[in-house]
Amino acid sequence: MTDFAKTAETIAKRARAASRLMAQCSTAVKSEALNRMAEALVDAAESTIQIANSQDVAAAKEAGLSAALIDRLTLTPKRIGEMATGLREVAALPDPAGEIERMWLRPNGMRVGRMRVPLGVIGVIYESRPNVTAEAAGLCLKAGNAVILRGGSEAVRSNVAIGRLLHDAGLKAGLPEGALTVVDRTERELVGALLKQDRYIDLIIPRGGEGLIRAVMEQSTIPVVKHDKGVCHIYVDEAADPAMAQAVCVNAKVQRPGTCNALETLLVHRAIAPTFLPAVIGRLQQAKVEVRGCERTRKLVKGITAATEADWSAEYLDLILAVRVVDSMDEAVEHIATYGSQHTDAIITQDYQHAMEFLRVVDSSAVMVNASTRLNDGGQFGLGAEIGISTGRLHARGPMGLHDLTTIKYIVLGEGQLRE
Amino acid sequence: MTDFAKTAETIAKRARAASRLMAQCSTAVKSEALNRMAEALVDAAESTIQIANSQDVAAAKEAGLSAALIDRLTLTPKRIGEMATGLREVAALPDPAGEIERMWLRPNGMRVGRMRVPLGVIGVIYESRPNVTAEAAGLCLKAGNAVILRGGSEAVRSNVAIGRLLHDAGLKAGLPEGALTVVDRTERELVGALLKQDRYIDLIIPRGGEGLIRAVMEQSTIPVVKHDKGVCHIYVDEAADPAMAQAVCVNAKVQRPGTCNALETLLVHRAIAPTFLPAVIGRLQQAKVEVRGCERTRKLVKGITAATEADWSAEYLDLILAVRVVDSMDEAVEHIATYGSQHTDAIITQDYQHAMEFLRVVDSSAVMVNASTRLNDGGQFGLGAEIGISTGRLHARGPMGLHDLTTIKYIVLGEGQLRE
Repeated sequence: MTDFAKTAETIAKRARAASRLMAQCSTAVKSEALNRMAEALVDAAESTIQIANSQDVAAAKEAGLSAALIDRLTLTPKRIGEMATGLREVAALPDPAGEIERMWLRPNGMRVGRMRVPLGVIGVIYESRPNVTAEAAGLCLKAGNAVILRGGSEAVRSNVAIGRLLHDAGLKAGLPEGALTVVDRTERELVGALLKQDRYIDLIIPRGGEGLIRAVMEQSTIPVVKHDKGVCHIYVDEAADPAMAQAVCVNAKVQRPGTCNALETLLVHRAIAPTFLPAVIGRLQQAKVEVRGCERTRKLVKGITAATEADWSAEYLDLILAVRVVDSMDEAVEHIATYGSQHTDAIITQDYQHAMEFLRVVDSSAVMVNASTRLNDGGQFGLGAEIGISTGRLHARGPMGLHDLTTIKYIVLGEGQLRE
Repeated sequence: MTDFAKTAETIAKRARAASRLMAQCSTAVKSEALNRMAEALVDAAESTIQIANSQDVAAAKEAGLSAALIDRLTLTPKRIGEMATGLREVAALPDPAGEIERMWLRPNGMRVGRMRVPLGVIGVIYESRPNVTAEAAGLCLKAGNAVILRGGSEAVRSNVAIGRLLHDAGLKAGLPEGALTVVDRTERELVGALLKQDRYIDLIIPRGGEGLIRAVMEQSTIPVVKHDKGVCHIYVDEAADPAMAQAVCVNAKVQRPGTCNALETLLVHRAIAPTFLPAVIGRLQQAKVEVRGCERTRKLVKGITAATEADWSAEYLDLILAVRVVDSMDEAVEHIATYGSQHTDAIITQDYQHAMEFLRVVDSSAVMVNASTRLNDGGQFGLGAEIGISTGRLHARGPMGLHDLTTIKYIVLGEGQLRE
């Protein structure tokens, strides 16, 4: 066994042992732990965390990282305050573990039920933003799991400092030793070795760019729930209310363009395009959106860049929008199936048949009628905080909250029933 | 790209294309397809299937396979009839796809719902029993998926013959071309290449021994739901009703010892052991069960083989039982956590506190009070037919029926809602 494999096994085994104790922690203890963690973060915002973070930032500057990356890496007192608020919000959410979803009676008199229980040990592999450390820890622990966090190497000092504070605060509230581990080593080989600990780790959640997700999926023998890119569409139907369609498109593109549920491609029915496109593109351009259009779009609105094939599958995460005129809803649906990422897709229409058909045939984590794609979110859906939006199909799909960080076990209450 | 990778991609892409059409098939078409498949099997039982199967059996004999394996491989008209009955039963089950589990209203007026939809493309990798071909095909197709089946090489002629019959019958009922693929090549490299088709295949279900499951988990970049071994326990508490405890233990061990939910280790509280053990061991020995006991068991009942450390984690699948006397329920729970496989574990007790505690702290796919472990089964639980009992924690745990062969998508019915 290599040194990396040994270290990975030690980390994973320790978390596994802690997970059994975590599963028996009461809701009160878990919530108290998260509240104490929030307090500890605020108390250390201008000391421990600030010192560690400024070292990370200095190293990043020295290494010549981009201004955007350095911004994501930097922890201000405001950002630390938001981390604390996030922990308090999760502390206040109902505990999914222990809930019996359903219980039914069988003909032989035995009662069978489905009880939600913690998943066990969850590994989260993420990139530069150190606030993910607190977010992911809070959600995993509240659901009764042990958690192993491995952030980006450029944020390792910040992550370790935050992890230590959270861990100590958790211990004081009664969480077991080892329930929270922040990996303090940055070698890639150690990540690879952790991804093979399927005996001890139950789930891996990668959060980051496509490269990270692919690498994790290829190496992991542990199940992975991925939070991949969002190439989100709005299809403006011939029967759309133009004012509503404009408002929704502008909101979906502009309200926060850097998020995975922001609009990336607008599809417009040809019957409505001649009036709708000039109007909506005018408003988008006012909001500083660069529009890249198909041939027909460019005939209707002058001075627009031509969209290339690559634009149809682009996740811009920026004030750029691809626009295409389609002949029918079928063509829109086909475009979404070909170029989309099964994240979030919406139709704007007043036609009942079209709405129902779109809901049925489009296969994405969220399919919407007459609503902004930006609403595909755990908070907006009423599910509480989320660890991400799953673009996988197994176990969790769409906003992944506390519920999806648990699994079930069947429980049976019998009176001596036998198999015949 | 190697030849294997190319072939695997062709198979997987074809299934992916079919899966989009499958997802739009009505329940009536899918059920009709399964009923026609059943008919086709019965019609060909004594011709096509018999010929292909007798070639497999002859080859197996020539290769010197064990009598048990040859028995599992052999298709009699009775077994083919059972395959047909199984298909008809699944045809009659309610269709999970399209069901809206729950729909709720948000403060901004939008309605959010969870709609069950097919998983997509499911790959099943299995060993010698050719009846799995019909079983797995029926369940996957009824839930609206495309399915790729790869059975053991010793059964390839039988599997291909069955697959062709099922495929043609499906086409006649209106299923799309490519919805069902039986892989007709037997090279291991092709399985390896299929397990990398994560762009087109959504789930892999391995059914077979530990070696097969481990190999699949290690190679697959596609999510795997495993159906692993069952080291099942019954703990007879000090407060057990002795007659009930005897009946349950004998049933769990003897009723069908070759199944994964059969009893393998019996744990008995020391307070009840002196009276209970001689009685239950007597009955088990009458039923030809070989008992392997701990020291204390062997003091209470003479002439019993000593259990070794290996016995505690053995899945005998045979008329053998390991027996251990424990000092407390805590010791029983600890034994189960150490040696068990999180499959099925039961307590026999009249004590309410003990029952509730056992249900809470034992973490297995089914945890039972006063019932035979043999009852952990899709049919017995009222879930309909099952493709296996999942011992994984992600997506499906316990009996895996039609419901677990689907996923969800969120649907949103709005009136122009925006993100603020």
